[in-house]
Amino acid sequence: MRELTVKDIEAMEIGAGILGTGGGGNPYYGKLHALNEMRQGAKVRLISLDELDDDAVVISVGNIGAPAVSMEKICEGNEIVRAIRAIEENTGKKVDAIIPVEIGGANGLRPAAIAAITGLPMVDGDGMGRAFPEMQMTTFSIYGHCSMPAAMSDSHGNTVIFKDLIDEVWLERLARACVVQMGGGAGMVEAPMSGAYVKRYAVPGTVTQATNLGLAVMDANKQKLDPIEQICRQENGQVLFTGKITDLERKMAAGFTRGIASLEGFGDFAEQQGSVDIQNENLVFRIGEEVKCSVPDLIIILDVETGHAITTEVLRYGQKVAVLGIPCHPLLRSTRALEVVGPKAFGYPDIEYKPFEIY
Amino acid sequence: MRELTVKDIEAMEIGAGILGTGGGGNPYYGKLHALNEMRQGAKVRLISLDELDDDAVVISVGNIGAPAVSMEKICEGNEIVRAIRAIEENTGKKVDAIIPVEIGGANGLRPAAIAAITGLPMVDGDGMGRAFPEMQMTTFSIYGHCSMPAAMSDSHGNTVIFKDLIDEVWLERLARACVVQMGGGAGMVEAPMSGAYVKRYAVPGTVTQATNLGLAVMDANKQKLDPIEQICRQENGQVLFTGKITDLERKMAAGFTRGIASLEGFGDFAEQQGSVDIQNENLVFRIGEEVKCSVPDLIIILDVETGHAITTEVLRYGQKVAVLGIPCHPLLRSTRALEVVGPKAFGYPDIEYKPFEIY
Repeated sequence: MRELTVKDIEAMEIGAGILGTGGGGNPYYGKLHALNEMRQGAKVRLISLDELDDDAVVISVGNIGAPAVSMEKICEGNEIVRAIRAIEENTGKKVDAIIPVEIGGANGLRPAAIAAITGLPMVDGDGMGRAFPEMQMTTFSIYGHCSMPAAMSDSHGNTVIFKDLIDEVWLERLARACVVQMGGGAGMVEAPMSGAYVKRYAVPGTVTQATNLGLAVMDANKQKLDPIEQICRQENGQVLFTGKITDLERKMAAGFTRGIASLEGFGDFAEQQGSVDIQNENLVFRIGEEVKCSVPDLIIILDVETGHAITTEVLRYGQKVAVLGIPCHPLLRSTRALEVVGPKAFGYPDIEYKPFEIY
Repeated sequence: MRELTVKDIEAMEIGAGILGTGGGGNPYYGKLHALNEMRQGAKVRLISLDELDDDAVVISVGNIGAPAVSMEKICEGNEIVRAIRAIEENTGKKVDAIIPVEIGGANGLRPAAIAAITGLPMVDGDGMGRAFPEMQMTTFSIYGHCSMPAAMSDSHGNTVIFKDLIDEVWLERLARACVVQMGGGAGMVEAPMSGAYVKRYAVPGTVTQATNLGLAVMDANKQKLDPIEQICRQENGQVLFTGKITDLERKMAAGFTRGIASLEGFGDFAEQQGSVDIQNENLVFRIGEEVKCSVPDLIIILDVETGHAITTEVLRYGQKVAVLGIPCHPLLRSTRALEVVGPKAFGYPDIEYKPFEIY
């Protein structure tokens, strides 16, 4: 168990942004929330999977809603806390620790604030190892944990419990319908898991991973090194493309940001055409017609100068970017996982997933 | 406490149809459901408000959804039972009796089936004394009972608990969003009430009222009497118009049936033009431009031959109908009630409610 510092939280913002693979919302507000709690004396304690008791009651936490909304509609702050209390009351179990549902984007940082408010330790891991748009796309759910009863609470104080649902797809459907009514954002927690289950199926160490990623970028910027090179070294990543955004189709549909970004190469990729398909997150990267990387591997668009991630909402014509590929965790590469988070699950029947190192 | 007979249930179908004031869905399926349970030996016990214990735990039950959907998507049968169990578990209270949330339409009959399945007595009363389209429009809610925690369950077995919500309008909003996802229909129950509260604020005796209305119509048809006259006598009603439907605008919007039926008078109303504004239920009746009756008073369109109610979904060009006005219960005429169920609440800022007897 260790206590996160202000510098850790600041680094996590950068790291969670990178691991968000374009989506997951902006971690900036979660950072402010956590830092504000820390300034008032609260502590953010991080517990490793090893230290976690097998019998511990662990609950995964995050916000649900459209990333674009979360940039204008700020959280009230206790949404997730209310949802945790509702589940404690409903199940009669007292929660021992929280774990981020996804490390990428806004949900990577928000749990730090919740750890500070509740005093509960935050587990060093998460359910995605990146960001994904839907709730059934967690390793917790993929490997058999039933998310129900789940609870959501909004900024007004409305709390809904999803008690018995057929499956996680129904949870996604009903919670999504409610969050639209709630103004586009709400806190969400799923049924408690045992420490033993979390140790086995959480993507491990991702809070530390996000922190280290951020520290590497901060360090590189300070030392005038190439931050992108540092990221690649640390994550076994690879620069898939460098280019300028020449065209951008983007629309909001059914609560999701969808679109395609076209790139004209420079540097090593001069005269080549790249493209990134977007559905909240970056889903598929192509050079010409050829797929070079796809979900669940991480496709990250970075500002070529600063090494900071550019989320899908703030992509703009003319930006000079590097497209990075980072291998996802093996827990996301199993046949079972690919049914839920592989290209086919995102509406690409013709793309057979290959680990991007193979392309 | 008395046991309802097959004839009572059959009469209730007609009576609930009339009290549905055009909406509330078709009571036919609820009748079949109740009769089927009775054929298998189950009993439907009716308990009067007087007999109800002050400390009894009473829960209001019904279905939520678009009436048009309920005619094609038949209930699985245990939706409401699952919702009752979810509330019992959540509150730790055992339910002693159920009460129909609304006596008009489908929700007038369905509780009889639920009484049969669960063995719980059904209270002789309801929360509307007619049908209304939204959940905050009950006397229970109008006079201060908090509906939360409420629960809904669908035919698949999905159960959602609305635990803490700001108010009944939020319940309406979130439950409506969920029911759309659930396929347009679900069972719904609200937080338990004390027997003492129900005795004071339920619209009293409406199960018996529906039964007696149906028996009067059945009797009149058998004896070749005018059923409409019988209904008026029994309910202090008045024939507001007799005419032929000459024009019908009707559309589905935001889950509701909205429209207007135009009538050309015959008999005592020859050469006059009538019209009925519809929003699931019949809301406003006019002769020419002049309002003759409005919500919350009951405006009922009856087949002029049989005295059976014609719901808004089955209104057709050319039907010969009588338009009846029946005074609503005084509980719906208070200033407090009219804010929720008066013409203004339905989007008629210019119509000042007057008891229709005064027009």
